Amino acid sequence: MSEWRKDPLVRRWTIIAPERAERPYALKEGEFLCPFCEGMESCTPKEVLSVRRPGTLPNQPGWLVRVFPNKYPALRKSIPLESREDNLYHSMSGFGIHEVIVETPRHAIDFAELPRDHLAKVLSVYRERLKSLGEEEGLRYGLLFKNQGMEAGASMSHAHSQIIATPIVPQAILEELWSSVEWYRKKGKCPFCELVERERETGERVVLSGNHFVVFIPYAARFPFEMMILPVEHSPSFLGEEHLGELAETLSRVLRGAREFLGTFSFNFVLHNVPYHTRKEEEESYHWHLEVLPTSLRVAGFEWGSGFAINVVRPEEAASKLRFFVESLEGE
Amino acid sequence: MSEWRKDPLVRRWTIIAPERAERPYALKEGEFLCPFCEGMESCTPKEVLSVRRPGTLPNQPGWLVRVFPNKYPALRKSIPLESREDNLYHSMSGFGIHEVIVETPRHAIDFAELPRDHLAKVLSVYRERLKSLGEEEGLRYGLLFKNQGMEAGASMSHAHSQIIATPIVPQAILEELWSSVEWYRKKGKCPFCELVERERETGERVVLSGNHFVVFIPYAARFPFEMMILPVEHSPSFLGEEHLGELAETLSRVLRGAREFLGTFSFNFVLHNVPYHTRKEEEESYHWHLEVLPTSLRVAGFEWGSGFAINVVRPEEAASKLRFFVESLEGE
Repeated sequence: MSEWRKDPLVRRWTIIAPERAERPYALKEGEFLCPFCEGMESCTPKEVLSVRRPGTLPNQPGWLVRVFPNKYPALRKSIPLESREDNLYHSMSGFGIHEVIVETPRHAIDFAELPRDHLAKVLSVYRERLKSLGEEEGLRYGLLFKNQGMEAGASMSHAHSQIIATPIVPQAILEELWSSVEWYRKKGKCPFCELVERERETGERVVLSGNHFVVFIPYAARFPFEMMILPVEHSPSFLGEEHLGELAETLSRVLRGAREFLGTFSFNFVLHNVPYHTRKEEEESYHWHLEVLPTSLRVAGFEWGSGFAINVVRPEEAASKLRFFVESLEGE
Repeated sequence: MSEWRKDPLVRRWTIIAPERAERPYALKEGEFLCPFCEGMESCTPKEVLSVRRPGTLPNQPGWLVRVFPNKYPALRKSIPLESREDNLYHSMSGFGIHEVIVETPRHAIDFAELPRDHLAKVLSVYRERLKSLGEEEGLRYGLLFKNQGMEAGASMSHAHSQIIATPIVPQAILEELWSSVEWYRKKGKCPFCELVERERETGERVVLSGNHFVVFIPYAARFPFEMMILPVEHSPSFLGEEHLGELAETLSRVLRGAREFLGTFSFNFVLHNVPYHTRKEEEESYHWHLEVLPTSLRVAGFEWGSGFAINVVRPEEAASKLRFFVESLEGE
């Protein structure tokens, strides 16, 4: 049984999840039969959602995108939320939901290689599951993330993402939210909207700029080639996003551009939305975004000990390189 | 030239340091001559401190512990501190100091294998350099850290630690400090002192408990086998620490115990002190500590995106294992 524990000294929660130590690793091809492949549906928990070819049945072949509970969950819906607290130690039972989204029935295909209309289906599944989880009782947040490659923490090579929905709003989101609300109160505007304007104006950190989305390297990027994808129009949550076709195209192009330049690379992406059931002021201050984090081996003692990052590639330099390779895909 | 940049959205500073991309890697033996070895003194910047055999000269062989400026520094003392800020973007010139402490003249010896009296000399060099850096103008903090092993971010295999001294107090320290002061105001006591008492009382997370130091697995440890070393008596800064012999013994025993259990493992350690030139209330609220962080490959999208950690080993279980192996060293 997993457990939430709060650090006695700082505002930081850890999920203690011993059962996850038992999960298998399937990163080398042929090591064992992949439970995420079409035809292996009986090896996973029952699906909660799928996009399927007409006439096919749940938990049978015929799907294009498939969602099911994680077999080795960090958190469980079936654990009632109970809190135990004394003056120093605070824990809660491991309540939450942990799902896997398998993004293609084919084992050997990379996320960025998925056809654009297939990728748009994947994005609509993200949106639908995040929406449904927000309707479950007791959940304050749903974090969608992807780990691609062993260095990025993936344990399965078959293209997939995960959602972990939690009864606590993550600290990373709270910090963004607090700053945004503070900015909004001072300037009467969402700071992300200001960022979109400023980045498009100077252009020096922009990798790709489209009608509804802009991709840029953050001004104070922590990692080389870190990218941020933002909708141009104010939008607090991906749950309200309608331009999934353009987003699929954008995401695919920047990932393929990066691969042209970096070679095959491991990365994480994380989707940040305003929390579920939030206040109007927060919705006006916050703007959803997708952070793409190529894996860096250089997270060392200094970074852990200080919270400062050291990035050895200037964001403007990284953007110029990536822009060149993304533009060279144009002809396709 | 490096540069400090503040994230426009959250309170997070990054050091953009393109010159560090050029530093060499010497983790495989025999790959090239190691500049940290005795006899190679001319390959490093001039030393700022050394512990030497009597009659030997600076920047010549004969040293036991040797400190010099990092050849590929993240920050430089020679850059005047200048700040540039508009309503969104805030940067500062890359002012600061970055030093390397080579812990033994011998290439192949592991930090934990150093004789106890040698290790005590290393600790006294840490203390002396941290003290001197606190007297330099414009520095608010000195972070001592160690990266051992490639997975931990080390670029050189020869045993060494580093200090990065900064004009800004690191966010990780500020968060501990804010919480500690808040606790102190409420309860009239340093929360770390309370933690030492409680951990020794229950004992279930204690790895080693001595006269002046206690080592335990934090209640909400982020990583399997993470350890925290705290002085038993209240002490805000390592700069005032006198029991270096016992600390050397303690550190050596827990690292060797962990290696008995885990095999050769990569790790970081970081030393947290109260900032330089601080207020009395902060000195009364804060307690220095050393965090030992065995490298975990499981930092993935969820952790980056949320700030939550997932730890697959219960702290009590980890402590019980490590305690067994540390105690089995007793007979030496």
